[in-house]
Amino acid sequence: MIALLAGIISCEQKSQSKEATTPMSEQDKALFVLAANYFQPIPDSASNVDNPYLAEKIELGRMLYFDTRLSLSNSISCNSCHNLSTYGVDNNSLSVGFAGQLGTRNSPTVLNAALHFSQFWDGRAKDVEEQATGPVMNPVEMAMPHEEIAVERIASIPEYQDRFKLAFPDEDQPLTLINIGKAIGAFERLLLTPGPFDSYLKGDAAALNEKEKKGLDLFIRTGCIICHTGPALGARNFQKFGHQVEPYWDYTGSEKPDEGLFGVTGNEADKFKFKVPGLLNIARTYPYFHDGSVWDLREANRIIAKTQLKKDLTEEELDLITAWMQSLTGTIPADALQLPVLPPSTNKTPKPQMSL
Amino acid sequence: MIALLAGIISCEQKSQSKEATTPMSEQDKALFVLAANYFQPIPDSASNVDNPYLAEKIELGRMLYFDTRLSLSNSISCNSCHNLSTYGVDNNSLSVGFAGQLGTRNSPTVLNAALHFSQFWDGRAKDVEEQATGPVMNPVEMAMPHEEIAVERIASIPEYQDRFKLAFPDEDQPLTLINIGKAIGAFERLLLTPGPFDSYLKGDAAALNEKEKKGLDLFIRTGCIICHTGPALGARNFQKFGHQVEPYWDYTGSEKPDEGLFGVTGNEADKFKFKVPGLLNIARTYPYFHDGSVWDLREANRIIAKTQLKKDLTEEELDLITAWMQSLTGTIPADALQLPVLPPSTNKTPKPQMSL
Repeated sequence: MIALLAGIISCEQKSQSKEATTPMSEQDKALFVLAANYFQPIPDSASNVDNPYLAEKIELGRMLYFDTRLSLSNSISCNSCHNLSTYGVDNNSLSVGFAGQLGTRNSPTVLNAALHFSQFWDGRAKDVEEQATGPVMNPVEMAMPHEEIAVERIASIPEYQDRFKLAFPDEDQPLTLINIGKAIGAFERLLLTPGPFDSYLKGDAAALNEKEKKGLDLFIRTGCIICHTGPALGARNFQKFGHQVEPYWDYTGSEKPDEGLFGVTGNEADKFKFKVPGLLNIARTYPYFHDGSVWDLREANRIIAKTQLKKDLTEEELDLITAWMQSLTGTIPADALQLPVLPPSTNKTPKPQMSL
Repeated sequence: MIALLAGIISCEQKSQSKEATTPMSEQDKALFVLAANYFQPIPDSASNVDNPYLAEKIELGRMLYFDTRLSLSNSISCNSCHNLSTYGVDNNSLSVGFAGQLGTRNSPTVLNAALHFSQFWDGRAKDVEEQATGPVMNPVEMAMPHEEIAVERIASIPEYQDRFKLAFPDEDQPLTLINIGKAIGAFERLLLTPGPFDSYLKGDAAALNEKEKKGLDLFIRTGCIICHTGPALGARNFQKFGHQVEPYWDYTGSEKPDEGLFGVTGNEADKFKFKVPGLLNIARTYPYFHDGSVWDLREANRIIAKTQLKKDLTEEELDLITAWMQSLTGTIPADALQLPVLPPSTNKTPKPQMSL
């Protein structure tokens, strides 16, 4: 409520300033108040008390994020599937991993992922630090056969040895797989992308056009905010895909049913449950759903309204909601778009393995 | 000779300036004069009259260079094999292409490639513009089945349509495969990397330490300058690998003999001929030779002295030449390290194919 008041005040202050924006109409105010019940602006930082900010750690994380040596074949980096040029995804249904193998679920965006309650579609990692080393060890992704090889690769490079000491100054053995994850996680925590909708939530009603405002209103009134709330517009819990009508694959056309969270917990009640995705940059992170089975955002909206809310949205409603979702496309931080220069391997660096 | 004199003058000017460098000794002058017979500094620009500079074209080229949509599986960009974070190479013997297939030759660096007399190990493309689209159409690389699909992918994206018009303002049909190559080539022509040896050639004798100067002297006197001359230290002609002792694979341990230029011309005299590689950034562009069969620069120097000059270099000689080669590592231009934000695909964009 405090944030909400601050938003209105900030809006009124704006309308009194030199560059006066249009004052909020009563209708605008009502929508703004409604929206502020469900959404919050993206925070300035997504810090983690267990992984405090340190410039040296963030720079190290950026290097590791782009370093293909974390993959067995020395040809896949974090950025291969979570490409920062394309909003932290590869825009493929499934990603290409070691020796041309395909992953089993769609690669979610790394942008704003630090705001999520857990990581992976089944939430099996608690934060970005823990997530970061998952694909390194996954046999169909970066395919490191065991932790020691991943660490040995990096430890064979003198510059990395030095940088781990600087990034983890209080540790006797700073170069570990856990710290590789912490460094990458520290970098990823900077990948926050405020966009027009964020400006709107901070009080600038003019950040959305009339069509987008109608879409926002409809998104709320349709009930999408049962799941998609908060600064990330989702990513706060698990939900069963096909909650109202099932099976979900009758709607998505998915080739293989995926039991989701059940695979982690073994609880019957968790069958077909997935982490509710966040919606920031959703227009850029196609294709959609846990298996990337649907390429078109409008279609994805039609399907999810049906499977989760048992609602048949009209073409006009789909137009409006989809239009509003464009305002969720934010700005990728400049720092994320800066490629590192990576230090060379040495004769001690284990050689890559290129095929199965 | 004019450049040489300018170098000496610039050095003397420097020694008179406030930040005085050590004046050149007689020995330094003699080496400098000797070196200037064979090498020239990297030029300020590597322009192509058929592909004039235009800021809009260079920016477009940068986007295409990083765009995986030029590959059938939407997972390989130019930067995948010519990674600008690692000096324009992937540091693998052979590169991973479509569906995990391996290429047949080592991916050479794109840095300073615009200075080369031709492109590819067998010189089959005349310049970087022509080279750029080769891998796009190669079935084991980016694997576009025909030119139309590559063009259709890009043409389906409105922002690219606009950018091609700006980049090729005088053309009725600016979006063609040839112009994709020209835009990428325009970007690549900026990838010049002056380093310490370049400073040396411009007159700063202190840019090399004593060991490196000895290595330079030895490199010249051993006869390496029969092939490795000019601003790129090579890349001016073809030479038979195993010119003096053959077959070359007895020395490199190559698994498969490669007939090189013979594959292009069918001339018996061209068997086992390859483009002499340039040596700029050679310490960073391991592994070496056309098949990446040798990982260690010192070993590569031992082998090439034997196969091309029939010389057995001593351990000390190898140390010195290899030490000098470190001074060929230059600075990657900041512009090359700036990732573009890529425009989204549309419903018209042909979908990727992920496996064979």
